Amino acid sequence: MNDRIRSEAFRSKVKPAEAAAALISNGDTLGTSGFTGAGYPKSVPMALADRVTAEREAGRELKVRLVTGASTGPQCDGVLAKAHGVSYRSPFNTDAGMRNNINSGETEYFDNHLGVVAPRAVQGDYGDFDFAVVEAVAITEDGGIVPSSSVGNSQTFLDVAKKVIIEVNTWQSPELEGMHDIFRGNVSGLPSRDIIPITAADQRIGETWLKVDPSKVAAVVMSEESDRNAPFAAPDQNAKAIAGYLLDFFEHEVKKGRMPKSLLPLQSGVGNVANAVLEGLNEGPFENLMGYSEVIQDGMLKMLENGRMKIASATSFSLSPEAAKEINDRMSFFRQKIILRQQDVSNNPEVIRRLGCIAMNGMIEADIYGNVNSTRVMGTRMMNGIGGSGDFARNSFLSIFLSTSTAKDGKISAIVPFAAHIDHIMQDSQIIVTEQGIADMRGLGPVQRAEQVIRNCSHPTYRPLLEDYLARAKKSSYGLHTPHLLNEALSWHQRFVETGTMLPS
Amino acid sequence: MNDRIRSEAFRSKVKPAEAAAALISNGDTLGTSGFTGAGYPKSVPMALADRVTAEREAGRELKVRLVTGASTGPQCDGVLAKAHGVSYRSPFNTDAGMRNNINSGETEYFDNHLGVVAPRAVQGDYGDFDFAVVEAVAITEDGGIVPSSSVGNSQTFLDVAKKVIIEVNTWQSPELEGMHDIFRGNVSGLPSRDIIPITAADQRIGETWLKVDPSKVAAVVMSEESDRNAPFAAPDQNAKAIAGYLLDFFEHEVKKGRMPKSLLPLQSGVGNVANAVLEGLNEGPFENLMGYSEVIQDGMLKMLENGRMKIASATSFSLSPEAAKEINDRMSFFRQKIILRQQDVSNNPEVIRRLGCIAMNGMIEADIYGNVNSTRVMGTRMMNGIGGSGDFARNSFLSIFLSTSTAKDGKISAIVPFAAHIDHIMQDSQIIVTEQGIADMRGLGPVQRAEQVIRNCSHPTYRPLLEDYLARAKKSSYGLHTPHLLNEALSWHQRFVETGTMLPS
Repeated sequence: MNDRIRSEAFRSKVKPAEAAAALISNGDTLGTSGFTGAGYPKSVPMALADRVTAEREAGRELKVRLVTGASTGPQCDGVLAKAHGVSYRSPFNTDAGMRNNINSGETEYFDNHLGVVAPRAVQGDYGDFDFAVVEAVAITEDGGIVPSSSVGNSQTFLDVAKKVIIEVNTWQSPELEGMHDIFRGNVSGLPSRDIIPITAADQRIGETWLKVDPSKVAAVVMSEESDRNAPFAAPDQNAKAIAGYLLDFFEHEVKKGRMPKSLLPLQSGVGNVANAVLEGLNEGPFENLMGYSEVIQDGMLKMLENGRMKIASATSFSLSPEAAKEINDRMSFFRQKIILRQQDVSNNPEVIRRLGCIAMNGMIEADIYGNVNSTRVMGTRMMNGIGGSGDFARNSFLSIFLSTSTAKDGKISAIVPFAAHIDHIMQDSQIIVTEQGIADMRGLGPVQRAEQVIRNCSHPTYRPLLEDYLARAKKSSYGLHTPHLLNEALSWHQRFVETGTMLPS
Repeated sequence: MNDRIRSEAFRSKVKPAEAAAALISNGDTLGTSGFTGAGYPKSVPMALADRVTAEREAGRELKVRLVTGASTGPQCDGVLAKAHGVSYRSPFNTDAGMRNNINSGETEYFDNHLGVVAPRAVQGDYGDFDFAVVEAVAITEDGGIVPSSSVGNSQTFLDVAKKVIIEVNTWQSPELEGMHDIFRGNVSGLPSRDIIPITAADQRIGETWLKVDPSKVAAVVMSEESDRNAPFAAPDQNAKAIAGYLLDFFEHEVKKGRMPKSLLPLQSGVGNVANAVLEGLNEGPFENLMGYSEVIQDGMLKMLENGRMKIASATSFSLSPEAAKEINDRMSFFRQKIILRQQDVSNNPEVIRRLGCIAMNGMIEADIYGNVNSTRVMGTRMMNGIGGSGDFARNSFLSIFLSTSTAKDGKISAIVPFAAHIDHIMQDSQIIVTEQGIADMRGLGPVQRAEQVIRNCSHPTYRPLLEDYLARAKKSSYGLHTPHLLNEALSWHQRFVETGTMLPS
């Protein structure tokens, strides 16, 4: 314990998780560490979930409001959802149990841009924060909190919360110390704020530990629970096809002189398709790549290892168990190649636009005009959340959305007449890629965009239906600028809800 | 002429407008000055429109692609639309004739975020620019181009265009010289870009003139045409009610300590309601206000005059004829109080977020969840364009949308079940104000947002219908996170298209 908690003052605050969880009251708002299943507190939420159940059995309610960096894992969102202990959740979730509670209406959920959670927390949008609960790999001699496998909003939560619980996790490699970069300027406090002086993805601008007022620290808890580290599926044919179109496009842009051969700092969402793109880049002609993203995935790790990518900046890891082991075994190597920043820096429009990132994000569906739904299946059922896709899509040099052209064995088309929910307006989606092809919509008006999207991206089964929709809309729409048949616009989704397929019978 | 064109080299290039317009060919892309009816070229577009007609009569086609700062006026969009001389238009228009051509499908229109036009122009999204056509009040001894009543994208267009036409306008006050602030860093060029070193709205960071390569200047044209300067209607009761709710809200926020008494830099859209808010602020308790906006309207001018506002930063004027006369008469006073910047600086997410602006924009409609339609009547017919509303709404400290709760004598509700087009996603609209009241949606999940919006903002005629929609959706929606009845969601708009009212018969 002494090498993990190097401050005696903090060692004196060590308590069992149960004792720490006992400090939390019904209705409290918790701001926790954690981003894409990495670096979230575990033992305290598990003890809290047990308390929720015990209280319920005793006829008392114990529910908290949970605000995080992004998604956590089974020992946080998982156990708390199962115990029905969360009344409010923000800004991002991928846990299946929590998703069910959100979609049943039990848990109020505000999926927010990951880059604005910190300023909104300071402004009071989430109300007062009763507790910050932050995972650390170590506490320094001077009481600095060394984050673990993500940074997220931890510094902001430590700043604004009334009380603090630190969970020191010995499963996390102590060699993570030195990888983080915590900027001390005013990024998300009340205005006027400071310039974020990043002009290159590999630039360090801060310190390696989080600051906390020791008098607010109510407990330090030891934990040895592991991060989520979900396995990746190997890319299938469709994912490879999507990656292929995208790499051809990059080559074309480089040839035209619109991008350097080292491309521009890459942002990549999480998932199968994103990983296929990274694997493609790993075999492609581009060198000296940089990452400026939210998360480090397996694919980026490989590129850092073989030198194709010089450095990756993010706020978190999102690794398979194999990759997590790999990085833990070679942490001193990777510590030179990876910078983990606060998420209000990693996802800040200022930096994203200045660096000119290439944003690559998945989607649920796009309409014919390129409006993108990233979050709500059939417009109403929350999948995960908007995450950082909006931070990057609007401010990047290029904004690219990726998806297979159908889902559920062809019963759902990813290209629809009208998106049943919109997370990214058409101005913020420039390129759409499916396994059918690529739509380059840069500079185009709506009808020209629709022609590209339908022809190049839709599945052949749905293409004639979309062509027919657009043709009829162009004849009888109220306005011909963005033609629609309002009484048919959402009929594909309605049909799926009623019959289980978007295809007409 | 010698005091307006102080460079002999430029004086030697003076030509009649007809001769300059004759240089332009069918299919050419023009990047012009002009923003909200101020500072756009006039004599050259008028001559070009005459040529379009003459060519058509001779059996030849002459159509150009027109990219501007934002809206122009009758002597540019107006005449060119009337002559049917524009095949493509971006990023913003308010001219009725051009709007008709857009909505008939004749003119392809890409309404883009005003803050990203410059980088997209450099990246090639608009193709090559054949001509930059820029209005100036003067040309300096060294060939510096002094902009007139707006800056817009002129510097970028001068940089990227193959040829340049300068229109020196003697109607514009020569005393505008010194009001502009042209930053020389790389804001919108290819990455990596420079930091924009603005940390306060009143900070000057550049020079007062635009740079141009003299060898590209094909013509200098003299003009004495006036800016558009549309009159403002005096605020009516509804506008005053909206302003009242908003000012009460500001007072409340100041009392809670969430904003300083001088508020934060104000961004205000154009129009009747926006002007009522500014007039309200002029009579309210707040002092030492700052403006960081796109446009200077009549209301801001008054506040600058009486000292309630210290300084206003924008990229353009949008004044009534009376206010235009007022400012021209007292230009040396106002030149100390107003800074006109490039629109990729005035509308840059970096600066807007750093300063923590208060964004106040009008809208066409919002759905019950607070998704906002700013552009398309009944989802399909273009009104003006998204303009800079997205630049400010997403990145500001507070994002506020304003509208009366109904339009067309109550036949249209501004609060609808489902927005027929979305420009601002729910995360980017925090406060909605109508003459009925104010919905404060900060930090809320969708259903809680809907309850606020329906109860506080909808018109009593439509309120029971919206309550009924939400209640039924909460029972039978596919997902209960963002409940919708997909087969009814757009029925209000469809009903209006069919019957002329959103009210059921």
